Amino acid sequence: MNIHANIEHAAPVEVTVGPLPASKKVYEATTERSDILVPFREIALTDPTMPCLRVYDTSGPYTDLSTTVDLAKGLATIRSPWLAKRDGLHAYSGRAVKPEDNGDVPLDRLVPPCPANRQPLIGTKGKMVTQYEFARAGIITEEMIYVAARENIGRKAQLEGAQAKIDDGNSFGAEVPAFITPEFVRSEIARGRAIIPSNINHPELEPMIIGRNFLVKINANIGNSAVTSSVAEEVEKLVWSIRWGGDTVMDLSTGRNIHNIRDWILRNSPVPIGTVPLYQALEKVGGDPLKLDWEVFKDTLIEQAEQGVDYFTIHAGVRLAHVPLTANRTTGIVSRGGSIMAKWCLAYHKESFLYTHFEEICDIMRNYDVAFSLGDGLRPGSIADANDAAQFAELETLGELTKIAWAKGCQVMIEGPGHVPMHKIKVNMTKQLEVCGEAPFYTLGPLTTDIAPGYDHITSGIGAAMIGWFGCAMLCYVTPKEHLGLPDRDDVKIGVITYKIAAHAADLAKGHPAAQLRDDALSRARFDFRWEDQFNLGLDPDTARKYHDETLPKDAHKVAHFCSMCGPKFCSMKISQDIRAESQRIAGLEAKSAEFIEGGAEVYVKA
Amino acid sequence: MNIHANIEHAAPVEVTVGPLPASKKVYEATTERSDILVPFREIALTDPTMPCLRVYDTSGPYTDLSTTVDLAKGLATIRSPWLAKRDGLHAYSGRAVKPEDNGDVPLDRLVPPCPANRQPLIGTKGKMVTQYEFARAGIITEEMIYVAARENIGRKAQLEGAQAKIDDGNSFGAEVPAFITPEFVRSEIARGRAIIPSNINHPELEPMIIGRNFLVKINANIGNSAVTSSVAEEVEKLVWSIRWGGDTVMDLSTGRNIHNIRDWILRNSPVPIGTVPLYQALEKVGGDPLKLDWEVFKDTLIEQAEQGVDYFTIHAGVRLAHVPLTANRTTGIVSRGGSIMAKWCLAYHKESFLYTHFEEICDIMRNYDVAFSLGDGLRPGSIADANDAAQFAELETLGELTKIAWAKGCQVMIEGPGHVPMHKIKVNMTKQLEVCGEAPFYTLGPLTTDIAPGYDHITSGIGAAMIGWFGCAMLCYVTPKEHLGLPDRDDVKIGVITYKIAAHAADLAKGHPAAQLRDDALSRARFDFRWEDQFNLGLDPDTARKYHDETLPKDAHKVAHFCSMCGPKFCSMKISQDIRAESQRIAGLEAKSAEFIEGGAEVYVKA
Repeated sequence: MNIHANIEHAAPVEVTVGPLPASKKVYEATTERSDILVPFREIALTDPTMPCLRVYDTSGPYTDLSTTVDLAKGLATIRSPWLAKRDGLHAYSGRAVKPEDNGDVPLDRLVPPCPANRQPLIGTKGKMVTQYEFARAGIITEEMIYVAARENIGRKAQLEGAQAKIDDGNSFGAEVPAFITPEFVRSEIARGRAIIPSNINHPELEPMIIGRNFLVKINANIGNSAVTSSVAEEVEKLVWSIRWGGDTVMDLSTGRNIHNIRDWILRNSPVPIGTVPLYQALEKVGGDPLKLDWEVFKDTLIEQAEQGVDYFTIHAGVRLAHVPLTANRTTGIVSRGGSIMAKWCLAYHKESFLYTHFEEICDIMRNYDVAFSLGDGLRPGSIADANDAAQFAELETLGELTKIAWAKGCQVMIEGPGHVPMHKIKVNMTKQLEVCGEAPFYTLGPLTTDIAPGYDHITSGIGAAMIGWFGCAMLCYVTPKEHLGLPDRDDVKIGVITYKIAAHAADLAKGHPAAQLRDDALSRARFDFRWEDQFNLGLDPDTARKYHDETLPKDAHKVAHFCSMCGPKFCSMKISQDIRAESQRIAGLEAKSAEFIEGGAEVYVKA
Repeated sequence: MNIHANIEHAAPVEVTVGPLPASKKVYEATTERSDILVPFREIALTDPTMPCLRVYDTSGPYTDLSTTVDLAKGLATIRSPWLAKRDGLHAYSGRAVKPEDNGDVPLDRLVPPCPANRQPLIGTKGKMVTQYEFARAGIITEEMIYVAARENIGRKAQLEGAQAKIDDGNSFGAEVPAFITPEFVRSEIARGRAIIPSNINHPELEPMIIGRNFLVKINANIGNSAVTSSVAEEVEKLVWSIRWGGDTVMDLSTGRNIHNIRDWILRNSPVPIGTVPLYQALEKVGGDPLKLDWEVFKDTLIEQAEQGVDYFTIHAGVRLAHVPLTANRTTGIVSRGGSIMAKWCLAYHKESFLYTHFEEICDIMRNYDVAFSLGDGLRPGSIADANDAAQFAELETLGELTKIAWAKGCQVMIEGPGHVPMHKIKVNMTKQLEVCGEAPFYTLGPLTTDIAPGYDHITSGIGAAMIGWFGCAMLCYVTPKEHLGLPDRDDVKIGVITYKIAAHAADLAKGHPAAQLRDDALSRARFDFRWEDQFNLGLDPDTARKYHDETLPKDAHKVAHFCSMCGPKFCSMKISQDIRAESQRIAGLEAKSAEFIEGGAEVYVKA
């Protein structure tokens, strides 16, 4: 269901709202705090005597029928009461918006700021601001309580219930507990093993956690395009991404109006928003990397931190000495940020301002609790370049920077590759955990072969599932358009679904105590020929239904005890049901037979 | 390019012919025998000074511009001269076609047999017929010479050339040689580690080999549909599958006209055709499993063997004692063949005729060199049922049957699952190798989660890549329509491309000595902004080009030194090229500088 969102000053366009098929949003109060309400999605089954399946829900209020979406008002600021009680924060006037923040767009083309814009908060000197600082101090925040409850779906039932226990995974040293407590969340954050990206200026956020002892998360990238006609169109990219399961969204916009569009996105985003501030800084200096300097970068960090961006990709690991290591690569430097900084380092023959001013960057980010996503500017862009000296040299630097950022009180995750053949994936994870003190790893794919442009969601989905299993905490999606063009709506959806598959396959293989509940529910529906349930329990009910309709369009077929693949005569599921009935009948006979029949050979008797 | 195929008695429909973009078919004589010509595809690059990339070519004469396709005549019978010289074969009148072979179709709806039909060959008593028998006797057949040359693409250049040597894979005990000789092929077949499915009645076949020390292969399934309007439409399914890379094709047709349609398919297939004879046998007895018996099954085996089917799925591993093991499964028995046989066993309370007549089945299949594909009738149909007692009990039986089939002189491969979470995949491969004496494994996926109907090419592509890496010899594709409906043309293509990705990713990870050549060629094209080459070197040039055109449609963009993702200002590849030039310049300066500059800190000087 689509409705027209009501946006002042912007052409009305469609923002997708309404629940997924057979689903409804439920909010449950946490055990610890009845005022903290955590959202879930409940999928109803066709048999009303069967319990609904509760699943993790990234989609925010957009799928809640009881919410009216008004982009100009922004989402409800659920974190505001929590933040208001923290004595380490205070409001201030903030930095004035400058024309270059919006790419010097002419006034008649200026997108207005979101009316929901408000005065920014900042940390008070000497007081605690970040989740990391609270965690280290032994303090459990509301965000920690929230994510603990959010992660626990199904686990209680799993522990108590009659369901098969799922404890046979291989987690490669991860320590996924049977049940998540707020204290466990706190301890993981304190150890640096998990982060809750949650800028104090993003009160609309529904907190989520990234770490290898939690559900594997996925990120979707969005960005404005030259032909952008409205703010709502940009917000819709966010809404669409989270509808299908994006846990965080990176806004990689460049060009005009980016400051104001970012404002609209943040005020309407229930998920953490990440950015690469370098992109905007480069815009401000006319696109010439050599004109970049610390001042313009610093100004951009503050600008975006005040808006509420939850994590920044910072390419501080690209050091001068690393650049020559890329000279003989097959595909050189493929990270935008990495290539910009490498060019800068080489031209000035010195370490980048990101590296030399790293402690100041930490101070700024700590002030707003913007989490670090330490960028892998030298990630390999081809199978040939995987795991090379440049890549691992940068990783070592990222490990050093992680320790500095922690010492400064910041939350940190580490970005990873890229293009890596299957046999070289594991060592990426092992090395990262070792070098970066178990800080969460956040990888792009990796793509396991270069030979399939147009299908890189698949080449990378393979690598993503594997590295997720090995311990990667968040997987950055790749769409079918990777290397070729800008993803459209369908591409974004395919990318998100592919990565939900990878993340879920990883959760299953790690032995997540409740991950298999959804597989089991869907498989039971399949065996019972509950077609509607099979569609609705899947990641993409619309596509599943559409595919079924193509061959068997009638309503009656949705309850048919066969499908189009084999038809009624050949249906293995149907025959199998008959076999089960027969086996059970025989088992009953067997029990009786045992009383008077000797010998093991004839345990069954033909009726 | 499509042309109308010229088919007598059938409505003319389009069969896809013509080369892929920038490609041409080349035939190369083998070193050992100048009369044995092996087909390859050569992809030309835009820079004529660069060598073409030669790739494995499954597509047969359909992509050869110098061939005129005439379905009524069938393909050239390249194996006939080879077979004619074997003293163990003789022609005979063969079994008469019966009305039930074509599903008792009324005469006015009967599809005529393919005019290219000819007298069948059969093995002469006491003489050698199969590739396995020749291999055991130390004899190298033409088929062995052919596949050795076919597998060797790029390896010679790789061994001799300046290209980076690729020797860092992890093959999990496979023994992939640097170069394949006919003798190596023979020894692998003799050990039972590889098969060349090649019925003596399929002279049109371009032989290929399946085994874990060879390139990982993929299978595509086709089948007639109720609305089939013509023979050419059915042949087109085959042609379309092999155009994109299907190494073998299984014809899973049921219903009317299947005998005659199979005839058309075989006479026009350059790839091995596999079938499940049980399906046709069931049709002959009106669809009731309980009416099946050895006589009708035997008759069907002979019928299909005389037509030239190259491998049969035989579900002889479903034993009576296994059936109760499935009673508490989440999804019971999901193999069609498995459920049919289980029902039969249970109803008659005895071992199946496939099991009790297994030696006779071997004798029949040996007579024509039809390879066994020992069916996994009890494969798991859900994550919950993966690696359970029923599955592994059947696998043990398949191991016993493998030894019997070998003793009878037959070629054998083993079918495998199914639905398996990532952490349970490896043990499937290890157990199969152990129990089945390293006979080639041929798996369906496996699907690594059940929660994504509509995307099971992806859930299974992940598992397929992994099991291929671990040693699986052939991967049976899964299309997006799996569990939901019948795949159409687009689905088949997506399924095949996904599985080519999985197979290639597996070859890379195993350390195949030349697999990376294609990745490297494509990545170099990407780095050089040779867009046309990037498209043409990929698995699906048409889709890659289409995606690029959506954002940058002009011809000029195909040589542009940027793409739509970042635009000219932000292009990392472009910046990276600048960096490389600068690094090289500096490296030159450095050499000079070393003469008069002290100290390691300042190894580069700014121009």
